[in-house]
Amino acid sequence: MILEVAVLNVKSGEEARFEAAFSKAGEFIQAAQGYIGHELRHCIGDSSKYLLLVRWVHLEDHTKGFRGSAGYQQWAALLHQFYKPFPQIEYYSEPLDFDVRC
Amino acid sequence: MILEVAVLNVKSGEEARFEAAFSKAGEFIQAAQGYIGHELRHCIGDSSKYLLLVRWVHLEDHTKGFRGSAGYQQWAALLHQFYKPFPQIEYYSEPLDFDVRC
Repeated sequence: MILEVAVLNVKSGEEARFEAAFSKAGEFIQAAQGYIGHELRHCIGDSSKYLLLVRWVHLEDHTKGFRGSAGYQQWAALLHQFYKPFPQIEYYSEPLDFDVRC
Repeated sequence: MILEVAVLNVKSGEEARFEAAFSKAGEFIQAAQGYIGHELRHCIGDSSKYLLLVRWVHLEDHTKGFRGSAGYQQWAALLHQFYKPFPQIEYYSEPLDFDVRC
């Protein structure tokens, strides 16, 4: 399992519209092969910044599968208008060290 | 619950020593009040870069509680020597939108 990490800078004043669009866009990434889960969070201290984490089985499930799909076209049509600058995406390995307590 | 996010750039050639040090340092953050969980991941495509995610009950559990503790001194003594530059930390809210499938 790998982790896709994107810091999303949304145009000032567009935050509420972005959040509404994201709630519609989720279904397109959720339908992708290899999708495990995602979370969208708001930055504390910078209201125009968000963090998107997406967990995928394999890197190619994002880079080839989702990006090459019709669902990605819908995702992009809903969301890409809000970003300035366009986000850089990074990918991270399985955890080297982790612990979770509930 | 909030998420602390740190991109860690480790001095080139020091990666193995950093990972060994991190496996010792974990106990100090795990003992902090308000700690929920953490994960350390290696960047795919940049072997000197890591991502540290730490989940806390409250922001202050990190900024005041852990940072003001004796455990933080031990954490810093083990890890800070490896970073160049010193990492910027960001904090993110509860998820606005999320989904997890197992």
